[in-house]
Order: sequence, then structure tokens, then C-alpha cells
Amino acid sequence: MKHQEPQNAYPLLEGIENPTDLKRLEKGQLTQLCEEIRNKLITVTSVSGGHLGPNLGVVELTLALHLVFDSPEDQFVFDTSHQGYVHKLLTGRLDEKFDRIRSSEGYSGFLAREESEHDAFGAGHAGTALSAALGMAAARDQRGTKEHVVAICGDASLTCGITMEALNNVTSATKRLIIVINDNEWSISKNVGAISRYLNELLTNPIYNRLHHDVGTLLNKVPGGEQLIKIGQKAEKGWKSIVLPSSLFEKYGVRYMGPIDGHDLDALLKNLEFARDSDEPILLHVVTKKGKGYKPALQHSERMHGTSAFDVESGRSKPKAQGAPPNYQDVFGKAITRFAKKDKNIIGITGAMPSGTGLIHLEKELPDQFYDVGIAEEHAVLFAAGMATKGFRPVCAIYSTFLQRAFDQLIHDVCIQKLPVVFCMDRAGLSPNDGPTHHGLFDIAYIRCIPNAVSMQPKNEDELVDMMHTALNQRLPAFIRYPRGAAQGVSIKTRPKLLPVGKAETIREGSDLTIWALGPMVQDALEISDQLRAEDDVDAGVVNARFIKPLDTELLLENAKLSRLIVSMEDGVLKGGLGSAIAETLMDADSNASLFRIGWPDKFIEHGTSVTALREANGLSREAMLSGIRKRLHIAPLNV
Amino acid sequence: MKHQEPQNAYPLLEGIENPTDLKRLEKGQLTQLCEEIRNKLITVTSVSGGHLGPNLGVVELTLALHLVFDSPEDQFVFDTSHQGYVHKLLTGRLDEKFDRIRSSEGYSGFLAREESEHDAFGAGHAGTALSAALGMAAARDQRGTKEHVVAICGDASLTCGITMEALNNVTSATKRLIIVINDNEWSISKNVGAISRYLNELLTNPIYNRLHHDVGTLLNKVPGGEQLIKIGQKAEKGWKSIVLPSSLFEKYGVRYMGPIDGHDLDALLKNLEFARDSDEPILLHVVTKKGKGYKPALQHSERMHGTSAFDVESGRSKPKAQGAPPNYQDVFGKAITRFAKKDKNIIGITGAMPSGTGLIHLEKELPDQFYDVGIAEEHAVLFAAGMATKGFRPVCAIYSTFLQRAFDQLIHDVCIQKLPVVFCMDRAGLSPNDGPTHHGLFDIAYIRCIPNAVSMQPKNEDELVDMMHTALNQRLPAFIRYPRGAAQGVSIKTRPKLLPVGKAETIREGSDLTIWALGPMVQDALEISDQLRAEDDVDAGVVNARFIKPLDTELLLENAKLSRLIVSMEDGVLKGGLGSAIAETLMDADSNASLFRIGWPDKFIEHGTSVTALREANGLSREAMLSGIRKRLHIAPLNV
Repeated sequence: MKHQEPQNAYPLLEGIENPTDLKRLEKGQLTQLCEEIRNKLITVTSVSGGHLGPNLGVVELTLALHLVFDSPEDQFVFDTSHQGYVHKLLTGRLDEKFDRIRSSEGYSGFLAREESEHDAFGAGHAGTALSAALGMAAARDQRGTKEHVVAICGDASLTCGITMEALNNVTSATKRLIIVINDNEWSISKNVGAISRYLNELLTNPIYNRLHHDVGTLLNKVPGGEQLIKIGQKAEKGWKSIVLPSSLFEKYGVRYMGPIDGHDLDALLKNLEFARDSDEPILLHVVTKKGKGYKPALQHSERMHGTSAFDVESGRSKPKAQGAPPNYQDVFGKAITRFAKKDKNIIGITGAMPSGTGLIHLEKELPDQFYDVGIAEEHAVLFAAGMATKGFRPVCAIYSTFLQRAFDQLIHDVCIQKLPVVFCMDRAGLSPNDGPTHHGLFDIAYIRCIPNAVSMQPKNEDELVDMMHTALNQRLPAFIRYPRGAAQGVSIKTRPKLLPVGKAETIREGSDLTIWALGPMVQDALEISDQLRAEDDVDAGVVNARFIKPLDTELLLENAKLSRLIVSMEDGVLKGGLGSAIAETLMDADSNASLFRIGWPDKFIEHGTSVTALREANGLSREAMLSGIRKRLHIAPLNV
Repeated sequence: MKHQEPQNAYPLLEGIENPTDLKRLEKGQLTQLCEEIRNKLITVTSVSGGHLGPNLGVVELTLALHLVFDSPEDQFVFDTSHQGYVHKLLTGRLDEKFDRIRSSEGYSGFLAREESEHDAFGAGHAGTALSAALGMAAARDQRGTKEHVVAICGDASLTCGITMEALNNVTSATKRLIIVINDNEWSISKNVGAISRYLNELLTNPIYNRLHHDVGTLLNKVPGGEQLIKIGQKAEKGWKSIVLPSSLFEKYGVRYMGPIDGHDLDALLKNLEFARDSDEPILLHVVTKKGKGYKPALQHSERMHGTSAFDVESGRSKPKAQGAPPNYQDVFGKAITRFAKKDKNIIGITGAMPSGTGLIHLEKELPDQFYDVGIAEEHAVLFAAGMATKGFRPVCAIYSTFLQRAFDQLIHDVCIQKLPVVFCMDRAGLSPNDGPTHHGLFDIAYIRCIPNAVSMQPKNEDELVDMMHTALNQRLPAFIRYPRGAAQGVSIKTRPKLLPVGKAETIREGSDLTIWALGPMVQDALEISDQLRAEDDVDAGVVNARFIKPLDTELLLENAKLSRLIVSMEDGVLKGGLGSAIAETLMDADSNASLFRIGWPDKFIEHGTSVTALREANGLSREAMLSGIRKRLHIAPLNV
């Protein structure tokens, strides 16, 4: 689909091939440039989808950064980096690939070192920028060079443990680091927690601002101020620590400046220049409006944080086709709400993803049984573990890729102690437009090695509800994975069924080979089986594996006796995955059966237009899978 | 070895069968009880080894906790929980199993839910207590019950991101939580970072203390104080936020009380009672002396943090036997120092473990090329990643079990970006006395699924140095695992050798079977091979696998053609491990070879006296391995 844009819509922006060009513009032209950038952002994301709101919010900030610093010599580390579109536009990426951002033919929706020398550090998960920037600053100090390192973090990054770990190490690692907190009061949903309240307090407390900007002057005006200074001077740290409600950041040895209006270019330039010339670690508290300059994005901040294609006029996304299957997320959200209504012990926990995970249904209907802990996956898991010790049945809804961050808590806190927390792992499989930082391809492997874990994937949305019901009615930590987006479109039973833990489901018997498929791959398996029967006269059985762990080794070994080829199909990496579990089982039993494993190869999978496109590009289209099986059939000893 | 203790050495302590008994003692008896407890701690750890220093420091604090609260109705969550010995003694565990703590016949060196109803939450890794306690407090509030939840954290827990994530969520999750910060200024090594400095400032700033305890009084005494109050009242938060250098914790909505002398029982009781009756989240800053009451432990805080058996009189550990092999840790520490002297780009990074990992050698000789970031594994990895982008070659020395905590950073930051960080994973395999929270049995599996990772284990200390050299001279993220403690005792070459990446080493050819062994298991394999030859006339080859990833599939498939049985031997979990990689390879190639996998079963391995004892208990003694192979030989089709 070619998107039409008016000719010459971006006269200034088109003149910017790199940040140096930017510096040649006259001051008066910058406002127009901002407008052009906003138009470009809206036009492109209305077609490609993407992180519109956050990028609209950082137009002036990104411009100011590039005016004050010299990228790529100076280095910007954007946290999460979904707000990097403006940076892309200013660093030579205003081209067709930008128009097709997040598709197979376009740039990544995040920053990536391989995409540009201006992308000093890639990211997709939140909270990493300060830590990485600190490493870069320490490296610069080791070399004795002079370049600047600037970490640009959202306010939500301060809810992430890593940021706080880094903050604790700033002054011991370097004397020179610039931290920009882009405070738009949102993570993805509305921010939660004390840090968020604290930042808000900094904005709203006039005394703080007055004191902060001119302590000395104020003290001299206040009767008794001089006395206070004297008392203070007796203390080690001087008067500053008595009279100033010193900022959180100053406790970490980082100078605080702010709040700064993030849409006032002059203020930004002045403060960034001060920070650039400063000889101490400095934090700029910049206040921006997510969605600035585009009314629908201002009004619907959460929906327009990361949006699908939309109508520019109204801001509305294209409505779902009539009769289209529901999303797994909605099925999950509605099911947990139903369960939680019947059982007060069921608690939903999310890390800043109530909408994304579907837990928003629970939040709306049973807010008391819902916790959003912010972008803090480690805490989410431990908090759940704590609740589980007291008889609650916490359900943590965390994307597969983000649960990686709580891997130690899964082992050390949940599974060692056999606490019956249920993990609903969304975005298992591909998150196609997002790419390598977001695909959920590792969880099968990383959970399979943990003792006491029960791990499973439903073949469709009805089985998802059965699995949730099953997980909540057994006593071990349970992990349910399911993909992003549309489910299979089957109807959901009124009463969910308890599935026998560790038992697979035979869907079709087959004498020549048996396909063990996981999740929606079961559907592929059935169609492949049909084709093999029709076109090759091969009798291919299909088993819905259901449980990765415990694996139904009994059925597997029976199958291996009857049909000498087993095929495994999974939406995860081959190394250590379901196929690997099957290989272990067959080998341990010294079975004579052959095994053909289908899954994702040992490389990071790029972003792309769709699941279909990425499967095709990586040898996982239905045709490629079928042809792989056919090839293998010629070398496998069959009972034909 | 039976340890002799004088009869009736613990008259009061022996009368305490549970915390209720404690409350029957008269106040005057408590000092004697403390002394008895300290004697018991010293006597027991002098034989068993253990965390002596931390436990000596919390005698009064633990006593006070049990006097003020009612365990198990009220719940204590001890962070890391190596300081839980005193708690064990007061909760019915003064018995033979305590005398043999950390051995196969004794209690765990940590708290464990399965050990006692008084152990509300188990731990071994740092920083989890606040988060778990918050979950428990929220659960209590959901139920509407009244019990207290107390998190007891070391000051170092504040360097961990999880604690800060939890702190951010305190006030949104509960109104009632008690946090005790046991500040002894040490993590394991001397504490680092801003938080540590900040706590110290709270201790040393007299103005802070005066203001804190009586703000109103002071303000009225200061000329102009009233004026200040008036100005402040106009601001939203009132005067408190102007005149009080409000504590870090108050920014998180948690009331700060302290500093409190942690060896003054009266002060502890008074403050804990206040906290118990308080209706807001409250943090008690308790100052203790690690090693209190035992001179050698006071003088050698780091060595006596976790000690091996020692002489009570001198505090000295038994010297190593003459000619005993060096520890892997020392070999690593000396080698990195040698490399770093020649190459300024080589940087050592540890998370509070300079002694434990051996990086202390580097710290002493080249302090500028050494960073200790505190107990902050996520930051350690990201900091390294940041340095690597600028051409440095960071070497992160982190125990296998603790690296679990940075799993997402390994994937998202290091491996996606192919940054050449080298991870030296200590304590890969068992950490016998510590048990399930500390065994390093998962890394083979959890690293094998990550694209771009190079993963390896040396057969002895000379090969460790070769592997370090190799890792530093290739361009991918590299992971080297090696066990805790004594190496093989081979001599180390003057010049390390570059190993071909992804190539295994054939040590002995064999026509009947080939053992693929990893790390020190190569030695076991050689001895098993000898025995098979001598006793069974079986010709067993031995391959030193060296690389788990990339696996030498070429050699493996050659071996599989020649000898129809492959045996894998690894010091890691079977699920997803080296044997699993071998199974995948054989199956993918449709090989006819059989495979017998030796490794750790799918359960958490308990603590125990020694590696030998735990191997025996879990079917991994040399005899058991040999007998397993023999059994398999009868069912495998051999070329004999």
C-alpha cells in the first residue's frame, strides 16, 4: 500500500541529512521544523502504526539535544527507544524505510546499533538507558576523551530496579553524565507508585521551585534565614541539607534541575547547555505532553501510546472486521475476571500493562483484586510470591519477553518454594512489528529447565480458559503461554474443563508419522496432515502437546513405537524447546523413532510486517514446514 | 567429627523451645541469653563454617523482634536470610541439626519454608525481602486480618533494584508494613554506592537527628522559624518539606526512624513497639556491628562474613594443605590481572564479590580497571554492555546463580547487540553447603537458548586461562563456567593458547562408546573409561566438549558413526543442558547412535556436606555413573 503525501510537505525536514544541517537553520525556522516533524509522525504512523504519542511528546526535546550536542561523537542513550522516531528523522533516516517503519521493508520501531551510528545503544525494554550510559561514561573517562553521554529516560524508568541500581553507582563511576528525565506522567498506562507521586510533587510545590533556584536569596529574605544558615554550617554538609528539601536525586549525588518545560525550545537549549558544560552528574527534569500537537493522541494517551493504523482526522483505529476472532488478551482478561468473581483469592498482577495484557477487564470490574506495580517485573513476581504464601492465587500477566527480567525470581522465589503463582505469558511467539527485543521465543526453553514449573500452551482460546482453570486448581507454579492478537475463533465453553496435568491430546491418529504441535501450531499441523494424506498418501497423526512440562512422555513413546517419525512444531527457539524435550525423551528411552523439529532458528528474529511475513522469511511458512517434513520422510524409515 | 561442648553451656537458651518461652524470661536474663547465643554461634560455625559475622551482629535485633512480635502469626521476612541463625535458635531449632548446620545432616544455612513455620519466606539471594513482605502485607489487608509483617533487610539490599521497585510500591499496596534496615555498612565486601554513603550521612549528621526527632520544638527555638512554618504552610505539603532534609524513604511514603543502636535491647524494643503500633509504613534504621562480640570477626569482617571452619581462639581458618591445588577463583583472578596489565581495555566488574570471585587480585593491582557495583547484577551486565560499545573488553565475574538475575540483560542488551562482554561464571555446578538457592545448575540451559552466545567450560584451570584468552580474542558475548573451589592441580602454561571456538578436544578415541564430558567431569570420564576398559573390555573414548555453544557437531556426528553409544556428562540440569544439545544434534542428523545423558535431575538439589555427598545422594557418584553406563550398554547396539 503506497501512502500519498502532498508534495513538498516537509521543506525544512527534507534539508536535514544529519544533525549538522540542523545547526544551520535559523532559530525562527525551528518551530516550523517541529511542525513538519509532527506531521510526518502522524502521517507515517497512521499507516504503519507505531509509538505516536511518545514521539509527539519529544519533538522539541530531541531537536534541542541534537542542537546542543554533536551526535555521533556525543552519545544519546534513549530508554526503551520507542521515542526515537524524531531522532531517526534528524539523523538521515527520512526516507522510504521510515515511511514503512516497523514493517519488513522499513526501519525498526526502536533504535538499533546496526541501523545507524547515531544509535549508540539499542533497546526495547524499559529502564536500561542510565545503566548503559554509565558504562559508556566510565569508558570515556578511562580513555580520557571528552565526548558527552546523555541518557534520555521516561519517568517510568525510575520504577525499574535497574535504573535505581545505576543511579546508586553514578558518582562512583563517573563525574560527568547527563540524565534527562522525560516526565510525561505515563509509562504505558498511567504511572503508579511513589516515584511518580514524587515527580509530581516537584512540579506542583512552588516552595520547592523557589528554594531550588535561589536558595541563598530566599534565605536572606526570610527573617531568621541567616540564623538557619549558621546552624546548618555546623553540620557536616552545610546549610543546604537543612533548608532544602533536597531532591531524591541529590541523595544519589546527582544534581537536579527542573522542572523544565519540554516544549519550550529556548528553555531546553539553555538547560541542556548548562548541563553540557557542567562538571558533575546532572539530571534534567523535563516535562512533556505525550501526544503534543495532535488532539486524538492527547485525548487517548494510552491507546495512542502504541497505535495500529488509524484515521488521521478522527484518530480512530480501523474497526475490527465483523465476526473476527477475539484477541487472546481479551479472552484472558474476561476469564480471569469471571474466576476472580467466584474466588476472592484470585488476584491479578501486571507490570504497567493492564491494557496490553487484558487485565484491564479485571481492573475495571474488581479493582480490589488487581495490582499494577509499574514497570517492575522482578517485584511483580516476588509480590505475587508473597501473596501466594498466604493462600492467595496470584495471576501474573506479563509478556513472555518481559518475564525474562524476573528469571531469578521464578527460580529462587517461586519455584524453589513451590508457590502456586500462575504466569500468563502474553506475546509468546512473535511480536512482529516490534522485532527482536519483543519476540517471546525463549520462554519454552528458559522455563523448561526450572524444577517444579508446570508449563503449557493452549491450541485455542477455549483451551486457554481451560488451562487457566487447571493452573488455578493445582498446587505448583504454572506458566501459560499464548500469542499476541487474534485467537482461533472457536467458541468458549460456559464451564471450563480441568485438563489432566502432563497429558497431551491426540487429535488424529497416524501410522506413518505423528506431529506434536504446541499452541496455534496445532492448526498448522492439522492442515499439513490433510495435505500429506491428500497429496502424499502419508498417514500423519496430530497431537496437541498441551504441556511442555511435564511432557506426556508416555503418549510420546507410544507414538514413537507406532509411527517411526515424530515431528515437533513450536513457536519458540529450537534450542532447548519442546522439540528438544522430545529429543531428550526419545533418546533417554533409546527409541528407534526419528524426530524432525520445527521451530525458530538460533538467531534473533528481525521485525517484520506480520507473523506470516516473518515465518516466510525464516523457513516457517506452512509450505516450508511441509516441504521439510517431505524431505525428511525420504530418509526416515517409515512403516509404509 | 563430633564437636565437644561443655555441659550446660546454654542454660537459658536451652529453655527456649519457641518464642513464647522467650517472653517469660526476666529482663535481666536477656543479656546472658545474648551471650549464650553468641557462644553457640561461634562454637557451631567454628566446626561447620557459616555466616558468623552477620549473625553475631543481629543477636539483640532478633531477640527484640521475637519479644515484640508473635511469630509465626506475625511474619518475619529476612533478606538473604544468612543472618537467620539466631532466629533458628529462638524457634525450636537448638538441636543436633543446628550443630551440623549446612551439612547433609543439618539445617540449611538459610531460612526455608519447609524447615519451620517460623520461616515465612526463604531466601539466599539478596534484595527480595521487602518485595515478598509487601505481597504478604497486601494479602493480609485483603483478608482483613491484623498480623504484622516485618522485612529485615541489610543495608546492601538497598543497592538491589528489586528492593527499590518494592519501595516504590509500598504505599500503594498497604498502609501497614515494618521495614528494618540492618545497617552494618557491609554487603559481603564493603558497601559501595550512593545509598551506602547516604545511610552513613544519616548516622553522622547531628542536625539531621535533632531536626528529625523534634522538628516543631527546634523551629520554635530558631529565630524566624515561625515565619518559615508560615511560608511552608502555603505549599501543599506544609512546613515539613521545607525544613526537614526529608529522608530518602519519606520520598517513598515510608516513615523513617533512626538511627537506632542495634545492640541496645531497650532502644530496639521501644522502637519496634512504636513501629508495631504505628498505622503507616515505617522503616527502622538499626545500626549493628557485624561480628559483634567476637574479636576475630570484628577484625576480619569480610573473611568472617561467611567462613569455613576455624580455630575459635585465633579466628584462623585451617590452612590449605601443602601442595593442594589452587582455587579456580584465584586462577581466574590472577589471569585477568595478567591480561589486564597488557591490555588497558580489559575491565573487571563484580557485584559485591571481589573476594568470592577472585577479582580482588585485579582490584589490588589495577584498581582503575576494576568496578564493584554492589549487589546489582542487572546493572553490572548493562554497565559492561555500555563499556563494550566503546571498545572495552569487560569481564563480568558473577556466580552462575546470581547471573540468573541479569537474564534479560544478557538477551536484550548483550546478545542482541553482539557486544563482546565476557562472563566468568563462578560456582557453576554445586555450592554444596549453601544449597538450592546457590547451586549453579541452570546456566548451561538458560544460556544455550540465547542466539550469539558462546558458552564453554574448561576441563581444568589451565584451560580456564586458555578460555579467558580465547573469549577475549573473539567478537561475541562469551560465557565461561567453572566450579567453586579447588581446581585440578595441573600446571598453568606461561602463554595461554587460543582455542578454536566451537571445537571439542578428543582425549581418547574409543570404538564402543564415546563420552562427551564437560569441565571437571572430563576427569571422571577418563577414570570411568579406564574402568570400562579394565573391567568390561569396553573401549570408551573421551571427548572434552569444551564448547556447549557452538557445539562441535561435526566431531559429534563422526563419533556417532564410529561408536554407536554417546554418553554425555555435565554438571548442570539435564533438561536443556549439554546432553540435550547432543540429543538435538543426533536427532536432527537422524543418527542411529544412542545417547545416555548424565547430569542433575529435574529437582532442586538440597544443601549438603560436600560435592561428593550430594553427588552420591543424587545418583551422580562415579560408581552410579559407571553403573548407569553399564546398564545402558546392554541395551545399546554396540560394535563389539
